[in-house]
Amino acid sequence: MSSVVAVGSMAFDTIETPFGKAQKILGGSVNHFSLAASYFVPVQCVSVVGDDFPRDHLSVLTERGIDIQGVQTAKGKTFHWSGRYGYELHEAHTLTTCLNVFESFEPTIPEEYKKTPYVFLGNISPKLQLKVLENMANPKFIALDTMNFWIEGSRKELVEILSRCNALLINEGEARQLTKTYNIVQAGQMIRSWGPQITVIKRGEYGAVLFDHGEVFSIPGLPLAEVKDPTGAGDAFAGGFIGYLASQAGFSISRYTLRKAVVYGSVMASFIVQDFGFRQLLNLKRESIEERYNRFIELTAFHVE
Amino acid sequence: MSSVVAVGSMAFDTIETPFGKAQKILGGSVNHFSLAASYFVPVQCVSVVGDDFPRDHLSVLTERGIDIQGVQTAKGKTFHWSGRYGYELHEAHTLTTCLNVFESFEPTIPEEYKKTPYVFLGNISPKLQLKVLENMANPKFIALDTMNFWIEGSRKELVEILSRCNALLINEGEARQLTKTYNIVQAGQMIRSWGPQITVIKRGEYGAVLFDHGEVFSIPGLPLAEVKDPTGAGDAFAGGFIGYLASQAGFSISRYTLRKAVVYGSVMASFIVQDFGFRQLLNLKRESIEERYNRFIELTAFHVE
Repeated sequence: MSSVVAVGSMAFDTIETPFGKAQKILGGSVNHFSLAASYFVPVQCVSVVGDDFPRDHLSVLTERGIDIQGVQTAKGKTFHWSGRYGYELHEAHTLTTCLNVFESFEPTIPEEYKKTPYVFLGNISPKLQLKVLENMANPKFIALDTMNFWIEGSRKELVEILSRCNALLINEGEARQLTKTYNIVQAGQMIRSWGPQITVIKRGEYGAVLFDHGEVFSIPGLPLAEVKDPTGAGDAFAGGFIGYLASQAGFSISRYTLRKAVVYGSVMASFIVQDFGFRQLLNLKRESIEERYNRFIELTAFHVE
Repeated sequence: MSSVVAVGSMAFDTIETPFGKAQKILGGSVNHFSLAASYFVPVQCVSVVGDDFPRDHLSVLTERGIDIQGVQTAKGKTFHWSGRYGYELHEAHTLTTCLNVFESFEPTIPEEYKKTPYVFLGNISPKLQLKVLENMANPKFIALDTMNFWIEGSRKELVEILSRCNALLINEGEARQLTKTYNIVQAGQMIRSWGPQITVIKRGEYGAVLFDHGEVFSIPGLPLAEVKDPTGAGDAFAGGFIGYLASQAGFSISRYTLRKAVVYGSVMASFIVQDFGFRQLLNLKRESIEERYNRFIELTAFHVE
């Protein structure tokens, strides 16, 4: 078992979905990622919060065993994202992105983090992602997430950092935007030609597609009778995906290890969408995670006599 | 092995997709269905064409062994559908639906068809679907397809006929419209409460979901690097689904038989979307069908040591 270093936002989220609203709740890519991944491996967090950030929340993370030495507190306001979703829950419509303390964030990597082999570069500015990467000693596996905001504003840096990554996790609309290609097979091949051998395209309730060494694996989302808020689903997916991979680090990353990682990612995403916020990721039992994994087996099995 | 009676449209289609256009090409629900199903079982067709319909085409069907005794020729014009698709290929935008000879169509069921155990009520007016059903002796398995046009205009008749069906095959947008419910699990449960124990919700490139006796099965679409025209994909799906079920008729319809039927449906749909029209369904080898079935196994397998 390895550890994972994760960088990304700690944030306030203001969210509206057809099923409710939430005002300035705690969120952020590294928050959701870390909580999901913490069920698989030790997680080391790099981020910044403003002086308006509730200290209590950091202890929620430490109670899950998450290392927050890399989380700085800066003068100013915490990052604030607000967005809304229509019934097409896999399409987030960003209303505002206030970077706030992220505008002048200089990540410093604690010494204890530097030799950690797994790195997740969560959804923040590619410039910051690159800075984190340059401070790591010799990472074995680097995964990247991003979003439309950076594809529009920092494409060049994004493509540069992609060339150094092992895996890109990206949602479908953003994969199309990044590659300027509608067809998802073509988009996946194009991304792989830019560097990351492993590309996972996330499709919300429609599941995920993994492109890996010329193979394609695809899994539908778990059909849920109630979904309230998809915010953080992509980060929880990444947490399950990379957490599982890192937990298998003593072994080679076989095709089936990768596929199972996609399923564990889908499992963690299926928890977080059931309500606003991240509470669903706080008190999970390992058995609940395995039970959902088994539901994916049930859901997709057909070639049985 | 059983036979299948299928009723539906023979049509001219005028189609525009981001990948091309086609003017007045041959199509129609029973056309696509029959060609797909003919790889599994004998098919008996019920429909009507106008005097503008090319006779040659009927021999294309008979060459595939399809029985066309139930296809009438009426004075007037053949049914004509025109529609377009944007990049979201699973959403058809109907431009015009000219019923033409279907307006006064009185289906007559040839004697040889009446005892056929499998019935597919393809996408035509629920009134006509009901008339066909009433002329069948004692069908063992009845499957229904429909579309927004009938959900809007003939909801009452549709719900009535649903109560007599074993299976509904419907696309996702139309399932939502029919049930006035966005969530697909809730929609599937609602439809089942109206009659059909088996409900298949088709999601275009995102695959299909099967609701059956409280269980859910889901499979993604086959990722294809080129898709030109989705017209007829739902009917080809139905052809593979019901064709496979009927081919297994000597056996009980187990959960895995149903799941495999969904996969064979997806296989047949994957062929038709690769080009305009139905040529892709004319000269398939059984091995090509099995090869695609195996690609679905490859695509979705993860729980292997």
